[in-house]
Amino acid sequence: MERAGVVAIVGVGLIGGSVGQAVRSRALAERVVGVGRDSGRLEEARRLGAIDAGTTDLARGVGEAEVVVIGTPVSRIARDVREAAGHAPTDALITDAGSTKQRIVAEVEADPRALGMFVGAHPIAGSERNGAAHARADLFQGRACVLTPTEKTPADRLERARAFWEAVGCRVNLMDPAEHDQALAWTSHLPHIIAAALAGAIPADTLGLAAGAYRDGTRVAGADADLWTAIFLENRMPLIEALDGFEAQLANFRRAILDQDTEAIRCWWQAARERRSLFNAQAPGSPIAR
Amino acid sequence: MERAGVVAIVGVGLIGGSVGQAVRSRALAERVVGVGRDSGRLEEARRLGAIDAGTTDLARGVGEAEVVVIGTPVSRIARDVREAAGHAPTDALITDAGSTKQRIVAEVEADPRALGMFVGAHPIAGSERNGAAHARADLFQGRACVLTPTEKTPADRLERARAFWEAVGCRVNLMDPAEHDQALAWTSHLPHIIAAALAGAIPADTLGLAAGAYRDGTRVAGADADLWTAIFLENRMPLIEALDGFEAQLANFRRAILDQDTEAIRCWWQAARERRSLFNAQAPGSPIAR
Repeated sequence: MERAGVVAIVGVGLIGGSVGQAVRSRALAERVVGVGRDSGRLEEARRLGAIDAGTTDLARGVGEAEVVVIGTPVSRIARDVREAAGHAPTDALITDAGSTKQRIVAEVEADPRALGMFVGAHPIAGSERNGAAHARADLFQGRACVLTPTEKTPADRLERARAFWEAVGCRVNLMDPAEHDQALAWTSHLPHIIAAALAGAIPADTLGLAAGAYRDGTRVAGADADLWTAIFLENRMPLIEALDGFEAQLANFRRAILDQDTEAIRCWWQAARERRSLFNAQAPGSPIAR
Repeated sequence: MERAGVVAIVGVGLIGGSVGQAVRSRALAERVVGVGRDSGRLEEARRLGAIDAGTTDLARGVGEAEVVVIGTPVSRIARDVREAAGHAPTDALITDAGSTKQRIVAEVEADPRALGMFVGAHPIAGSERNGAAHARADLFQGRACVLTPTEKTPADRLERARAFWEAVGCRVNLMDPAEHDQALAWTSHLPHIIAAALAGAIPADTLGLAAGAYRDGTRVAGADADLWTAIFLENRMPLIEALDGFEAQLANFRRAILDQDTEAIRCWWQAARERRSLFNAQAPGSPIAR
């Protein structure tokens, strides 16, 4: 990507802040402007090196932007894209970092001006921690970023979005918004639900005996309640389908253990183990797999 | 603990091998003898520094032992304890490292000679990897080890078992065998089942988009099928109870998402998140928490 003038980041949390750090550390823009609701947090983000300057005025923040990245929670993204489109230069690229895409893309596309500037994106990186304080310039390095253009997405904006997300370190894939949401229901939203169900179910008075399986299996239950509640609601139907699939899998185990069917338990475990090994195999040496 | 003469380890895999490495690196014994069924693997364990010598002859291996540690799979432990008791010196301590305790302790206690030498133990440490090749001298450092004496356990053996497990690095707790199995059903066996159910349920063609939540949530599904099948069968009833509790928790989420009840989802998540934070809080800075 050619060096940009201004990159504006609306919502400077973990993801927005990491975009800012990546852009600044790679000198991808002359200036990174953060837009947020809390001037104290914007000042912190500036001090941490995520942005060059911050403002609580969205119109001013995006007014000269060549690229606008919306890093707000999924329930607010469509509104923020449309508002940014009303204030950014007509030739700006607007992209987002939301974990769900179908409703966001549909709502943005209902606005002709926003439609002409927007490419939906989901850089698949994160943490159970929030806020610019946990942002990292290398958060996106080697991570997948799904772009979800539709037939209405302008080709030039798609190419610019691809160049932008690759420049901050991502491997870019293209998917249909609905297809994205279905896949992510399985690979991310379901694992978050399961982690929280485990964390919530295990009695507090046994935690002194918990070790690695507990620690890793419940880690993402530490994530923010509001952020994830919004994601689950946005992706409700695919998530219910994923829950059905998970519960069917668990029912198979329950039947096998009730029957004391050694061979059925062993086969059930072995199939899961082999499926898991595909994940390791596909990304050897990457920071994702182990 | 005073320096022992011979420590014999029956079953030199990840756990047995790590006991051997800990004993040798801390000079807790004059000699560590490994007992196994496969002389090639014993030779590898010797080469890796887990044992000083190996033998496939249990009678010879434990014949001069002051401490015998049984590191075989749970389905074989009771038998191995009883056989070791028949060949070890009368004043030896026999302890084990099995993930379940109730049946093992009951079967050992049915044998008067074994009963007089045995203290059930479960050092809560491990990995999804198997074999002496993954053994580590510090595997037990700071980890809980539950001893499960009964009213029949000789007091001197209990004190020696405590000294031994503390000497290899553990924090020792005492619990009733049934109480241990119930707690571990929650803290370890259930998380293993859930990891495998997740790994087995998530479609292979979505794994390219999987990231940290998937990786950590399914990690222990990489563990050995035979080892874990045996553990699940041993701890069947407590595990079914834990499954019931987990599924009730998941049903609460399903109801909230079906109802699109934002507040119910948020509260459900927040309660899980707070429960999870107890785990972090109780072991600050320990290798277990994060």
